[in-house]
Amino acid sequence: MSEQTGRPLRALVWNEGVHERNHDPADIGEYYPEGIHGAIAAGLRRLLPDAEVATATLDEPEHGLSEQVLERTDVVLWWGHVAHEAVDDAVVERVRRHVLGGMGLLVLHSGHYSKVFTRLLGTTCSLAWRNEGERELVWTVKPSHPITRGVPSPIVVPRQEMYGELFDIPDPDDLLFISSFAGGEVFRSGVTFTRGRGRIFYFSPGDQEYPVYNQPEIQQVLANGVRWAAPTDGERVVPDVTNPARGWFADGA
Amino acid sequence: MSEQTGRPLRALVWNEGVHERNHDPADIGEYYPEGIHGAIAAGLRRLLPDAEVATATLDEPEHGLSEQVLERTDVVLWWGHVAHEAVDDAVVERVRRHVLGGMGLLVLHSGHYSKVFTRLLGTTCSLAWRNEGERELVWTVKPSHPITRGVPSPIVVPRQEMYGELFDIPDPDDLLFISSFAGGEVFRSGVTFTRGRGRIFYFSPGDQEYPVYNQPEIQQVLANGVRWAAPTDGERVVPDVTNPARGWFADGA
Amino acid sequence: MSEQTGRPLRALVWNEGVHERNHDPADIGEYYPEGIHGAIAAGLRRLLPDAEVATATLDEPEHGLSEQVLERTDVVLWWGHVAHEAVDDAVVERVRRHVLGGMGLLVLHSGHYSKVFTRLLGTTCSLAWRNEGERELVWTVKPSHPITRGVPSPIVVPRQEMYGELFDIPDPDDLLFISSFAGGEVFRSGVTFTRGRGRIFYFSPGDQEYPVYNQPEIQQVLANGVRWAAPTDGERVVPDVTNPARGWFADGA
Amino acid sequence: MSEQTGRPLRALVWNEGVHERNHDPADIGEYYPEGIHGAIAAGLRRLLPDAEVATATLDEPEHGLSEQVLERTDVVLWWGHVAHEAVDDAVVERVRRHVLGGMGLLVLHSGHYSKVFTRLLGTTCSLAWRNEGERELVWTVKPSHPITRGVPSPIVVPRQEMYGELFDIPDPDDLLFISSFAGGEVFRSGVTFTRGRGRIFYFSPGDQEYPVYNQPEIQQVLANGVRWAAPTDGERVVPDVTNPARGWFADGA
Repeated sequence: MSEQTGRPLRALVWNEGVHERNHDPADIGEYYPEGIHGAIAAGLRRLLPDAEVATATLDEPEHGLSEQVLERTDVVLWWGHVAHEAVDDAVVERVRRHVLGGMGLLVLHSGHYSKVFTRLLGTTCSLAWRNEGERELVWTVKPSHPITRGVPSPIVVPRQEMYGELFDIPDPDDLLFISSFAGGEVFRSGVTFTRGRGRIFYFSPGDQEYPVYNQPEIQQVLANGVRWAAPTDGERVVPDVTNPARGWFADGA
Repeated sequence: MSEQTGRPLRALVWNEGVHERNHDPADIGEYYPEGIHGAIAAGLRRLLPDAEVATATLDEPEHGLSEQVLERTDVVLWWGHVAHEAVDDAVVERVRRHVLGGMGLLVLHSGHYSKVFTRLLGTTCSLAWRNEGERELVWTVKPSHPITRGVPSPIVVPRQEMYGELFDIPDPDDLLFISSFAGGEVFRSGVTFTRGRGRIFYFSPGDQEYPVYNQPEIQQVLANGVRWAAPTDGERVVPDVTNPARGWFADGA
Repeated sequence: MSEQTGRPLRALVWNEGVHERNHDPADIGEYYPEGIHGAIAAGLRRLLPDAEVATATLDEPEHGLSEQVLERTDVVLWWGHVAHEAVDDAVVERVRRHVLGGMGLLVLHSGHYSKVFTRLLGTTCSLAWRNEGERELVWTVKPSHPITRGVPSPIVVPRQEMYGELFDIPDPDDLLFISSFAGGEVFRSGVTFTRGRGRIFYFSPGDQEYPVYNQPEIQQVLANGVRWAAPTDGERVVPDVTNPARGWFADGA
Repeated sequence: MSEQTGRPLRALVWNEGVHERNHDPADIGEYYPEGIHGAIAAGLRRLLPDAEVATATLDEPEHGLSEQVLERTDVVLWWGHVAHEAVDDAVVERVRRHVLGGMGLLVLHSGHYSKVFTRLLGTTCSLAWRNEGERELVWTVKPSHPITRGVPSPIVVPRQEMYGELFDIPDPDDLLFISSFAGGEVFRSGVTFTRGRGRIFYFSPGDQEYPVYNQPEIQQVLANGVRWAAPTDGERVVPDVTNPARGWFADGA
């Protein structure tokens, strides 16, 4: 149950689903038999048994992100990589408006270059990368934050794509995790933002070539993130301009 | 119940209790018949019915803040004004260590000058003040934060002591509320900090001369603050220096 | 001279110029005989005598913001109100890219709704407003910051449009000024952001109906802002994705 | 010349000087023939030729930090390691008051445990460490900040003591550098804070066993830090409580 709304928390795991459809890499079906979204959803269902966890992909009508779906969704998780440009601009704007109105958003790994993330942040969100299966260590730097609860420091990811600085993002509200890679690069791998009434958590570990989302510690971070990003109340109100009369609040005291 | 620990959340409202003992002001017993701490505790009990809410005052042995009491406390609320210097340094250091180890702390109004707050923040925590019973308006500036949930913007406090900038605090983690006063001054009236593993919320509305803590909106802010500041896990571990061997984490992968 | 580049600092004051062209309000030519941009430029020339200060308006080819102009500009000041939509999207994107590459940007008053500001910040940048010529008090809350140097606290603006919270912006890097208005509203009236390699300063006092930009204290804030936002080096490099070889930095040791 | 004050910027490099006095390590006199403070001062004199750079050590009367010395100092650099407890509390409080009043402070390496740093920050400032001469890579993560000007990313420090997270500091104003070490640990190695009117920069690379302060890139960071931390005006005013009359600012409009 959501402490905030008194009804089950509703999470939606979105995946472009192109790597799965194309069997790229060839063995993706072995470590992600239900797709990347399926693995993420399974982790959430295990750790948030009271939540309702759904999935959606690019191929569905409106990419599975219709107005009706978003209205009843508390938190969207976004995984995309090769098909960012195929996401319809109207859907991107719809997701963005829901975030500004209070919906939570978790952006995962290569989603740093998704339209919805770059439009919400305003920067290029570019970074350095190298795909040689290097060991990643994910260190906690703000242990008071609920997203870090129950998470070991470091999380050891045996093989992973390297993401390195400079990560061109605005200063985050909170820096939770910093990663190092075997090659020596570092990355701000877990960062939070607020945009409008919505909470955003970007978390980089997780890739189509490595079974990172099957690691229990990674699943714990995502479950914590979903709970943290859930809106504090049920309404979905995008901030807008107002023109109040002088002293309008006096009777409302 | 605390979502974090699975047992009731335990809050302790601390008040120096000197204004009450001295009947200063003379009518304090009318609007705060159980003392300032009693009014605050009543609000918490109303809004957090599953929590255990206790109180303590300066006159008790160890000011009611023994090691045993703190060990079982999730969040301390601190109200002090004329007796900051009477608080024993050993108790101050004990409270500070518990905060660094994860205990939540809400510092209220004139508590800005308490030893525990100034030692945790490191600055003078000085401000401008004027006690002429001016109207205070408390505006929400970060509506995504759980401390602002269900709180109207502005909260109208009909009569209150003015606290104004420059408020000499470090940059807060989050700025939640900004107040204006009838005389034109402004004040960062609701701010959060993290120190060690502990979360701190400073909230300025509330004074011994005005029945501010009887206002339901003010009580809502404090209840939200207690829930927010509660530790994310049960252990109380003050950060300390470590000297790990190279690769110590490899077996923990 | 710019401490950073060893040549004169180059500022460009941009104004849509529509209020001036339309004599709206009728007396705008009395307090702003050279236009809003002219008043701002005059203040900068007085306080930054070594700087080169130019102006540009909407009616010029490419709005006076060609690639060649931006390449040689250190800081752009942006004033717009009724013609935000008339600004060409290609020019907006060009300015945005220069900011991400290191150019400074000062966004003034109603520029909160300009395309360049909302695209860099990602939020709606909406706010509350009321135009009744209320007194605004601009309080300094971070006196260590160079933008506040030599600025009295408060600055008293005798008559000004009210801008109030909720101001829907991301958390700023630094909160420098908070304003209160006669009607009781508050506003984060001076805030800084970093986007890419560029520094942004938003400052709200200043309107087409009131001669705010003629006030020496307001001019001081803008001059300080220009100096602060000037790039730390001469190159203009937008962050971009890189794919470095493992250990690429070893020879650079 | 200081842009702020129109007179030469005055920096004071403080070193406890105990490692040098004790020839510990035995070869410290080879790479630091003028002591750690001498090496740092030489770098500053090279890069800030207009500045006045002085040094002081623990053995001098009042540790070389008398009221008269501090009054005329813009920025203190602090290096200490084995003698933190030998620093007189009155001197610590004096330095702290000058920082709150506007003096800049650079805290270096093992100075994280100095009295002046921990009292200004309020946390334990503890960290993980291991002295095996590991390679440190210092990555820039905020290239818009003047402290990063002209600094390569990464700086390669061939051999250095490892400092790792969790670094128990309050959230910094700005995170400028993140280091990785050969063993895989990461560290927020360059962070800024504001306390009162004073600016603080903590930078960790630099140790008594390795000639880190002789590296030109490290010297560049420190010179940039000194220029950034210099006060914005000449006065030294510690924030203090005030009790202004209502409307006191009206005549100052």
